[in-house]
Amino acid sequence: MSSATMPADPYWSRQEGPWEAIDRADPVIWGAADNGPLTQAEVADFESNGFRYVKSLFSPEENQTFLDEASRLAQAAKPGDTGVIIEPASREVRSVFRIHQTSELFANVASDPRIVNVVRQILGSDVYIHQSRINFKPAFDGKEFFWHSDFETWHVEDGMPRMRAVSVSIGLTENNEFNGPLMVVPGSHKTFIRCPGATPENHFEQSLKKQEYGVPTREAMAMLVEQGGIVAPKGPAGSTLFFECNIMHGSAGNLSPLPRTNLFMVYNSVENAVTDPFGDRPARPTYLAERTFDPISATPFKK
Amino acid sequence: MSSATMPADPYWSRQEGPWEAIDRADPVIWGAADNGPLTQAEVADFESNGFRYVKSLFSPEENQTFLDEASRLAQAAKPGDTGVIIEPASREVRSVFRIHQTSELFANVASDPRIVNVVRQILGSDVYIHQSRINFKPAFDGKEFFWHSDFETWHVEDGMPRMRAVSVSIGLTENNEFNGPLMVVPGSHKTFIRCPGATPENHFEQSLKKQEYGVPTREAMAMLVEQGGIVAPKGPAGSTLFFECNIMHGSAGNLSPLPRTNLFMVYNSVENAVTDPFGDRPARPTYLAERTFDPISATPFKK
Repeated sequence: MSSATMPADPYWSRQEGPWEAIDRADPVIWGAADNGPLTQAEVADFESNGFRYVKSLFSPEENQTFLDEASRLAQAAKPGDTGVIIEPASREVRSVFRIHQTSELFANVASDPRIVNVVRQILGSDVYIHQSRINFKPAFDGKEFFWHSDFETWHVEDGMPRMRAVSVSIGLTENNEFNGPLMVVPGSHKTFIRCPGATPENHFEQSLKKQEYGVPTREAMAMLVEQGGIVAPKGPAGSTLFFECNIMHGSAGNLSPLPRTNLFMVYNSVENAVTDPFGDRPARPTYLAERTFDPISATPFKK
Repeated sequence: MSSATMPADPYWSRQEGPWEAIDRADPVIWGAADNGPLTQAEVADFESNGFRYVKSLFSPEENQTFLDEASRLAQAAKPGDTGVIIEPASREVRSVFRIHQTSELFANVASDPRIVNVVRQILGSDVYIHQSRINFKPAFDGKEFFWHSDFETWHVEDGMPRMRAVSVSIGLTENNEFNGPLMVVPGSHKTFIRCPGATPENHFEQSLKKQEYGVPTREAMAMLVEQGGIVAPKGPAGSTLFFECNIMHGSAGNLSPLPRTNLFMVYNSVENAVTDPFGDRPARPTYLAERTFDPISATPFKK
């Protein structure tokens, strides 16, 4: 297709050349600010900061049913199961994907109005689940996750066209100072960071020695944190973090005796369904990036 | 020597068999509680918790001279220098040891009455420097340090007979929630944890797969944290942590853009000078464990 008919991709990444920061080309709030449960001030806050943390959105009783179901899924998981990540050394389950498909309880959670109505208000349309999973970050040995924008990966590897998705993370355990809570850089969702590519200019460069594809440079992160700082929302089990698909986030290791178990769901607008990847690799499997786009809620969104 | 003439070592560790927790066999406060700058309440607090954090013990101006001197030492450090730890991949200096010997400024800091008089009050004698160093925990890539008791290492590897030493860590940079501050387990200095040995019963056991000698088991740590919790003292540059030689401590990685640089000095009682190691390996080099025992202060301690 010629460049005359195909608009240039504003969010190209992992190509040759140095890193680059560009302004986000999409709105953060796609819907009418008053069309949903959030107040206009809450909508403005999400627009500005890129995240919203609600302590105890789910009750201790509800949360206990989630934890029990998570344990059941982990115990039923077998090595080789699609969408099950097991650490070879310890044989412990680290992640179980596609839980909105495999568990009736989690399908209900995924379509819970306390979540879906907020996400639809932000995204201005019906939404479907792009990815869902439970992450088990074990006590003492939970590993850190370096800073990244999920959208960068979903765009390059999965073919998500625009920034019109919101992630929701429900803490099934308490998130505290010591068990590696998610850290976000407020405001960073407004900048797109092109990551260094697969053919780095200097193979020995520190930041690339682990072949960190889709990882921002230290310089980019220093700039973003200089602008917005770092926030690590903390709260009791059942607390829920909504975060914009392009916000920079990461988490430190867990050296505490308390595991950190999170239920994670990605809501994408049905008007933003994934296409072919924007990078040069084949699309990832559907447990990482769904390719059916049915609205998650039985109650249609009214624009 | 027969067991009739040689008292059994209460602090043996890294031998065969399971881990074990025993009560500390030594006092925490060796001196008279009123013989020094700390109030009796402060002494009692240290006795109970095993640490004392003093925000801004050194002024910003003093701290800047420390930072400048630390940079000078790091820049002068060459690979292969004794007591210099350089990361091979990045060629960055991670630690410079024996700074109380190689720097006049740090020799003065090591003998500063704001530190030495507190340490002598706790240890009830003159003190010498068992080890000194600067730790450079770099921004973004600073690695975590798992929980450990320094005394366990100093006893087994260096031959420190009893628990009669205090460490002092001066934060030359701010210590905050995100740059991997030291974490301590209050009260844990009152329990000695024997660590699993070099011949584990089960080679595949998770806790030993990295050959973690001198590292407490996860079970031991869970017990200690259950009793005392975790505290990570945070404060501006120049803030200083005094901590008992047997307190369990560790630190998470540093994912923030701010390096964490600490000046670290270990004060041992001159009445507790190191002997042959209590383990079965040769003694470590003197930059890790001094073998001259001159009191650090020109002003003798009066009992």
